[in-house]
Amino acid sequence: MTNTSIHLAFRPVGLPDGTMWNLQQTPVPPCEDGQFCVRVHYVSIDPAMRGWINEGTTYIKGVEIGAVMRAFAAGEVIESRNAAFPVGRLVTGMFGVQQFAISDGNGVETAPAAHIEELPRAIAALGMPGMTAYWGLLDKGKPKEDETVLVSGAAGAVGSLVGQIAKLQGCRVIGIAGGKAKCAYLLHELGFDAAIDYKASDIAASLKELAPNGVDVYFDNVGGDTLDAALVNLARGARVVICGAISQYNNTLENGAPAPPQGPKNYMKIVTARGSLSGIIVFDYFDRATEFRAQMQEWIQAGKLHPKEHVVEGIEHFSEALLMLFRGENFGKLVLKV
Amino acid sequence: MTNTSIHLAFRPVGLPDGTMWNLQQTPVPPCEDGQFCVRVHYVSIDPAMRGWINEGTTYIKGVEIGAVMRAFAAGEVIESRNAAFPVGRLVTGMFGVQQFAISDGNGVETAPAAHIEELPRAIAALGMPGMTAYWGLLDKGKPKEDETVLVSGAAGAVGSLVGQIAKLQGCRVIGIAGGKAKCAYLLHELGFDAAIDYKASDIAASLKELAPNGVDVYFDNVGGDTLDAALVNLARGARVVICGAISQYNNTLENGAPAPPQGPKNYMKIVTARGSLSGIIVFDYFDRATEFRAQMQEWIQAGKLHPKEHVVEGIEHFSEALLMLFRGENFGKLVLKV
Repeated sequence: MTNTSIHLAFRPVGLPDGTMWNLQQTPVPPCEDGQFCVRVHYVSIDPAMRGWINEGTTYIKGVEIGAVMRAFAAGEVIESRNAAFPVGRLVTGMFGVQQFAISDGNGVETAPAAHIEELPRAIAALGMPGMTAYWGLLDKGKPKEDETVLVSGAAGAVGSLVGQIAKLQGCRVIGIAGGKAKCAYLLHELGFDAAIDYKASDIAASLKELAPNGVDVYFDNVGGDTLDAALVNLARGARVVICGAISQYNNTLENGAPAPPQGPKNYMKIVTARGSLSGIIVFDYFDRATEFRAQMQEWIQAGKLHPKEHVVEGIEHFSEALLMLFRGENFGKLVLKV
Repeated sequence: MTNTSIHLAFRPVGLPDGTMWNLQQTPVPPCEDGQFCVRVHYVSIDPAMRGWINEGTTYIKGVEIGAVMRAFAAGEVIESRNAAFPVGRLVTGMFGVQQFAISDGNGVETAPAAHIEELPRAIAALGMPGMTAYWGLLDKGKPKEDETVLVSGAAGAVGSLVGQIAKLQGCRVIGIAGGKAKCAYLLHELGFDAAIDYKASDIAASLKELAPNGVDVYFDNVGGDTLDAALVNLARGARVVICGAISQYNNTLENGAPAPPQGPKNYMKIVTARGSLSGIIVFDYFDRATEFRAQMQEWIQAGKLHPKEHVVEGIEHFSEALLMLFRGENFGKLVLKV
């Protein structure tokens, strides 16, 4: 069997154009004792990937030059010398951007899926993006009925779930997204109360109109000017939940090195609003996965929550898929079908 | 009687050099029914004054051109047609930078002082700076025994109290201040465990050495690069308490208008540290003044807490006193003796 895999050739400056990826084809090695082989079906395309290809270590070591690109993925065990992961088991794990992965089971879990077709959702609404939205909103944002919840990146993997879960808590929900189509999706398919097209309008001014009493919970996926616009519109006692800063991940210094995000110049507004800022790290909630999945599946089955996966086909389109994220071209969770 | 008062002639750009102040001498008007006249003895010199002389309204309306400069102050009632404030009563209130103030009692309180000589402390450790330090640290920072507390502006009115109160909670205390003399004051007079001279050393690198396990509570009076240096040294679960941003209050745009502070580019470190950021607004704690003063006075009388007032004499030196604040030349609470 031949494995097709995507490797990091060099570290990009700014937006990762396709040139730093090498597609390789190599034989799949045999499994050793304790190992098993996964046929990877779906690769999760995540904003975090931009950080992983930088030099150095943040919360996780950077991908080494020449190595298979790191990715969270889902697939099926097709060969096994590990009793815990028998052939036919559907699994998720850090399998990388490749067709076949040899694993010793470290970090691998049984996927919440009965069929291969359910794997995209297993790495979306029922996986890490889902957990991030669910716990970030409920445990960090602590929205109360009738409060106003604002979410940026609202048509994305996490944001689209945050808004829907907030609606299920009885909140008024405003989403920030780019373009008419996304805003229509928020309003007409997901039931948001209002949508702000950041490409066409001044966010701070729109918020002043849409939330004259201020925002009680702001769930931030994008950072930058959007975060600053939200900060000037906080209600008293507002909770700002930082999830990501996708608008800032391709920032570079003049020498080409990665630059930190733009700091929120309006951070003192958190003080005057008697608010707080904290963040969501999904790893902290892995031990509550059962609780989370039971609730999400109940909502999905009852037709109260509509997850969406945006599937791009073909491992050779990995680079374009990643760029779609940073260009804001995805609706819902972006996954690559291998 | 003649009143000497300081008036705002125009709005300054950046650091307020002396040119925007007019000293005027006018007769003290007689008291009307319900009014009383205060002989102002001490004027509180506060960083907030910089904001008050900007155009427009933030949490309080800007001082109007030509008006007496706003100031919190302490004095004695010398004439009264208001039974609640009899002659001889020592009081605090927004009396402005002047020798005599006519008041109707709005916002005026009896000073926690038995003699005129105790008035500086009444507007320092026992007044708003004291409340800010006490509640900001204890109610917002929530330090626990053996935790590491970091405070910037550590030799200033609020910072010097924050560090001492943190020591009284059994914490390890690190102060950031400018210059050798201030650092020696922190270490040898106030009992801080460590001091970082921001004019002579790299704060982030010093913190890495002095607090290898990170900072549990960061109390920020200065903002800017100091805040960013603290953010990269947070311990897991750290609480960042924003009190002020004195390093940023004189920022100006190219057109001379006031500019917002530099945003903390390392704000995502709050997320990875599983920390939080909030602020302290002293007004929220006025109803707990008795509780606060009882504890502070107990500590002071037991010799466990050493407040310091830095007195500048002469109303004609108001402008220099204000500049001392922004140049970081004061030790403890800066007050102007009128």
